[in-house]
Amino acid sequence: MANQQTQQKQIVTSGIRPTGELHLGNYYGALLNLTRLQDQYDAYFFIVDLHSLTTHPNSADLRRNLIGVARDYVAAGLDPEKCALYAQSSISDLIGELHTYLSMVMPLGELLRCPTFKEKAKKHPDNINYGLVGYPVLMAADILIHKGTLVPVGEDQVVHLEMARTIVRRFQQIYGDLFPEPQPLIENAVRIPALSGQGKMSKSDARDSYISMRDESDQIQAKVKKAYSDPARVYKHQPGHPTIEGCNIYHLHSFFTEADLLDGLAAQCQQAAIGCADCKHHLATSLTSIVEPFRERRAQVSDDDVVDILTIGGQKARASAELVLAEVRSAMGLRTF
Amino acid sequence: MANQQTQQKQIVTSGIRPTGELHLGNYYGALLNLTRLQDQYDAYFFIVDLHSLTTHPNSADLRRNLIGVARDYVAAGLDPEKCALYAQSSISDLIGELHTYLSMVMPLGELLRCPTFKEKAKKHPDNINYGLVGYPVLMAADILIHKGTLVPVGEDQVVHLEMARTIVRRFQQIYGDLFPEPQPLIENAVRIPALSGQGKMSKSDARDSYISMRDESDQIQAKVKKAYSDPARVYKHQPGHPTIEGCNIYHLHSFFTEADLLDGLAAQCQQAAIGCADCKHHLATSLTSIVEPFRERRAQVSDDDVVDILTIGGQKARASAELVLAEVRSAMGLRTF
Ligand code: SF4
Ligand code: SF4
Repeated sequence: MANQQTQQKQIVTSGIRPTGELHLGNYYGALLNLTRLQDQYDAYFFIVDLHSLTTHPNSADLRRNLIGVARDYVAAGLDPEKCALYAQSSISDLIGELHTYLSMVMPLGELLRCPTFKEKAKKHPDNINYGLVGYPVLMAADILIHKGTLVPVGEDQVVHLEMARTIVRRFQQIYGDLFPEPQPLIENAVRIPALSGQGKMSKSDARDSYISMRDESDQIQAKVKKAYSDPARVYKHQPGHPTIEGCNIYHLHSFFTEADLLDGLAAQCQQAAIGCADCKHHLATSLTSIVEPFRERRAQVSDDDVVDILTIGGQKARASAELVLAEVRSAMGLRTF
Repeated sequence: MANQQTQQKQIVTSGIRPTGELHLGNYYGALLNLTRLQDQYDAYFFIVDLHSLTTHPNSADLRRNLIGVARDYVAAGLDPEKCALYAQSSISDLIGELHTYLSMVMPLGELLRCPTFKEKAKKHPDNINYGLVGYPVLMAADILIHKGTLVPVGEDQVVHLEMARTIVRRFQQIYGDLFPEPQPLIENAVRIPALSGQGKMSKSDARDSYISMRDESDQIQAKVKKAYSDPARVYKHQPGHPTIEGCNIYHLHSFFTEADLLDGLAAQCQQAAIGCADCKHHLATSLTSIVEPFRERRAQVSDDDVVDILTIGGQKARASAELVLAEVRSAMGLRTF
């Protein structure tokens, strides 16, 4: 059995938040990461529209965001032939059913002690819903509905995955061995620095501190021009410090500029043979060479394409979920009529 | 709109606990009550196998209890042509889905303050699951999945129905007017006294203090013979006190014996013209005339009949639930793929 297990392809599940505008940090981190996973594993990627309900978004926004984010991922390379890309709500009946079953085995105390719950409860003391404390149970349902074995997690999600593992163990104690314990897939988190040099690129910072994946070439040039570089190099005749710690521009180059070109730039910088303006121009060109093709691919994906992809993804997810739920119901002695 | 509403047939929903052996108190109270409701309303009656999961029953017991309790209700007169009689788990996907949505609007604080939760948590401190605190949310889903307007409630359930009404109002604030606020249908609770004279008939008391609906005629005679009667009438030559307060046997007669016969017995008792043994024999005969036909009807309902009835009931319930959920999803902007 263990042998058979190990020979099977691992099943990776990952939730995608329906956020708005995409920036280079997301793209180079989360999006490209998922496109790599689809090649190695049985992959189920779902946009978490149900989770977002705890904050009661309006329904037109919800749909627009869903389509927008799905388009981003398709443009980034998610291939509907290789993975199931779907809206969580496409299988809301099956997720809801499993969520209900799992809620019967998850200790309330652990949920109340969960740091992310405490944080949210503190932020929105007027909106502490039953569903908010149950977020990790719903997340466990998202994973277990496909018998997911691997879950890419950021630091903030390790606790939630641990709860999913608790649920698996408690379910097992009562109903037998049905779910594998999902393992965290710790990614070498790519932290693209902000143009401002302050922390990593983030949409919540000033618009000039991140590159949007919608930026045009001249916007990118303008933003990079103003970006933070080596503070010790005030005049062009001073040599710079082209290292990750020494210069934010170099740090950005290290992700996006080819090694040959970058080595040349660094050598010139150390000899004060190139000015920062030129160096930044090269960086902006590197960034544009990533953003522009993405923008073009994105423009080629129509709303209809996205709807088709999500529909097919929903069907794939449903087929997988139905099989698992049939086993669950049978183990629990339910649905015999 | 209000006018239209009032002209529509009311929708009554009621949960049935999958308990074991039935006694005369249940029968004369809960069971006959539901058979009356099916004539007046659109009726959805469901055996609450999902609720029972919080205590993790084994699955063979669960199914046996389900079939047993459904047989009881059919023998008592529930007519699958007039109502939908189904196992809650037959629509566990749709209940689970609605439960998940409703959990996003129900304040956690109110659930934690619910007296029945506090009581259960006190009784089973080792088994306080997320699902346990959410019991009223699941109950609200049971009602709202059919847009139930009337819910027969005992005293212990008034609080839960109040929470369902809270959920309706909060849902309405966010997503608009979709669910009617379900109203309590306060039944004149029939409290059949125990044979012991101590409180109402209950299965948790000694076996001799209640009449099981499985008792044979001679068992009934034997139990009634030992039953508590007028404590002030020690000898046959003393007159008795044939009133509800004065004599437990008279109290029982008042439910089950025809008025003419009962008036005669009371007159004879007051004149010390009849002994308690004879009076009890009459009572046992009255009880037998209720229990015996029920036992016979019950014996005629086969397992296959019950399975058929629950299957058809499940289909009826599913059809109704699908319509309501389609409206819910649309109001919430979900399931657009
Ligand atoms: S030339 Fe480039 S690497 Fe050197 S200090 Fe200026 S921006 Fe940094
Ligand atoms: S005769 Fe009947 S009513 Fe009168 S005291 Fe005896 S049991 Fe009670």
